Amino acid sequence: MKDMTEMQIPTYEDMLAAHERIRPHIHRTPVLTSSYFNDLVGAELFFKCENFQKAGAFKVRGASNAVFGLSDEMAARGVATHSSGNHALSLSYAAGRRGIPCHVVMPRTAPEAKKAAVRGYGGIITECEPSTSSREAVFAEVQARTGAEFVHPYNDPRVIAGQGTCSKELMEQTDGLDMVIAPIGGGGMISGCCLTLSTLAPEVQILAAEPEQADDAYRSFKAGHIIADDAPHTIADGLKVPLKDLTWHFVSRHVTDILTASEQEIVDAMKLTWQRMKIVMEPSCAVPLATILKNRERFAGKRVGVIVTGGNVDLDKLPWMTAA
Amino acid sequence: MKDMTEMQIPTYEDMLAAHERIRPHIHRTPVLTSSYFNDLVGAELFFKCENFQKAGAFKVRGASNAVFGLSDEMAARGVATHSSGNHALSLSYAAGRRGIPCHVVMPRTAPEAKKAAVRGYGGIITECEPSTSSREAVFAEVQARTGAEFVHPYNDPRVIAGQGTCSKELMEQTDGLDMVIAPIGGGGMISGCCLTLSTLAPEVQILAAEPEQADDAYRSFKAGHIIADDAPHTIADGLKVPLKDLTWHFVSRHVTDILTASEQEIVDAMKLTWQRMKIVMEPSCAVPLATILKNRERFAGKRVGVIVTGGNVDLDKLPWMTAA
Repeated sequence: MKDMTEMQIPTYEDMLAAHERIRPHIHRTPVLTSSYFNDLVGAELFFKCENFQKAGAFKVRGASNAVFGLSDEMAARGVATHSSGNHALSLSYAAGRRGIPCHVVMPRTAPEAKKAAVRGYGGIITECEPSTSSREAVFAEVQARTGAEFVHPYNDPRVIAGQGTCSKELMEQTDGLDMVIAPIGGGGMISGCCLTLSTLAPEVQILAAEPEQADDAYRSFKAGHIIADDAPHTIADGLKVPLKDLTWHFVSRHVTDILTASEQEIVDAMKLTWQRMKIVMEPSCAVPLATILKNRERFAGKRVGVIVTGGNVDLDKLPWMTAA
Repeated sequence: MKDMTEMQIPTYEDMLAAHERIRPHIHRTPVLTSSYFNDLVGAELFFKCENFQKAGAFKVRGASNAVFGLSDEMAARGVATHSSGNHALSLSYAAGRRGIPCHVVMPRTAPEAKKAAVRGYGGIITECEPSTSSREAVFAEVQARTGAEFVHPYNDPRVIAGQGTCSKELMEQTDGLDMVIAPIGGGGMISGCCLTLSTLAPEVQILAAEPEQADDAYRSFKAGHIIADDAPHTIADGLKVPLKDLTWHFVSRHVTDILTASEQEIVDAMKLTWQRMKIVMEPSCAVPLATILKNRERFAGKRVGVIVTGGNVDLDKLPWMTAA
């Protein structure tokens, strides 16, 4: 872990500047309510629907802030990342809006559908072998060749400032909240919530939700230092990555608690949301609702913001489909 | 067909009164846009998301108007219908809000899931044999026994006035439209569009969309009189019913054109919407988008309101799932 003095901690003003910067490139996503879920939980839930966001997930906020904050000179060399998920889509989308290249290093074994999605948003894929050493070597080569700016999926102050705009909108769209809950993987979204709410509405509790089978953030939170798992296995595939120094900074200071849910609880919550709210959400973003449903007493009578982080799923491989 | 003079044609003022009456009981559903679909079609599409409506479909507008328009004396005897689809759910929901019984006559062979959904909204089911004669006999018995008010799923002036509130909201939520398109089955929603738009915005074209395999409205429209099919077969199961005198009144006077789509085009449009817009829509309400995608030249450059009528699907039997 880097020394704290080396880290560039984004500020509330950075978040405000991010919101101005990205406003033309993102949706102000709607907040939906469901009397079914309100009755079930005995609380008032406000779902911030980032599954309707550009490129299908909140990550476009941070990626757009990074891309549109670059000087023209830096921007001309493009941006680069090695995510194969929503961050890669989002960075490709944002780079496309600015008309600059976006380089994405992906394992050659990644599903064709994921590669096609990245290319669909204009990303330029360089394949590596499916190992950390190959990924790092290939990524270094791409960066050296292009001079592209690396934008980390979450451990980047520009990205966290961008993600913070989501809870700013949520507070503007609701009439006061007691709590906000969001999934936690690397901690980008939660850090954005912490950044924004600790200044804008410090009375609002910030809860993080995590799969039991990838509960490294939960264990880090209890231990007081980062614990990283090697290769956690969960259907919530956006939440497998570990906390890093910058996100740990926010999580350790501002998160009230971390709750966990089992794989079956996650799938049940996901399916129930599709059935009752008619929205397509990823397994990752069903985790908060799953933890709410199993801890109803904790939420009873409260006004709770629930961040629905994304809706990019493979409709041909839904978790409740029986294997062929 | 009844003589026209016998029909009670709902007026624009009836629609305005309906909106006031049902406002506490329905959602003002959001209008979503999609740059993906805008680019694909070369038009501006505004999706009025009635899949987010109470009970999961627009039908709650008409059902609520009928239920809350009853005198206390009539209401005390309850309401009755013989739909097994969204109208039954909606009427049960509205009756429950008013605290009166809702009787639903359904074939004993109807899927358990449908019966459970009706009961979930408080509907009281009386089973009949799966034949028209049995349904009519059982329904007559229920009405005679209870004195409940029959609320037809679409051929009812109270229902049409209620459905008309949807395009009123759509016009309020958009900044002018060239066209509105909605699915057509029995014609309740389209009649509501006609009722509202012919007064509020007579310059707006009204298009209806229908499955090729249940194109009785299309053929009626071309022939100039109602043609009813016996038992059309389509995945868009909300659109199998024929036009009736009251809906034909509106369709024959105010609809600009009726477009049709094949079963495969409907499924493709449905899946594409789930993928790109992250919303769960029924096959029936994918029909308008399917017809837009196959007639792009007709919509190019236009501002088009698309009524997404409902989101009640069986997630375990999606049309793109391969049979086990």
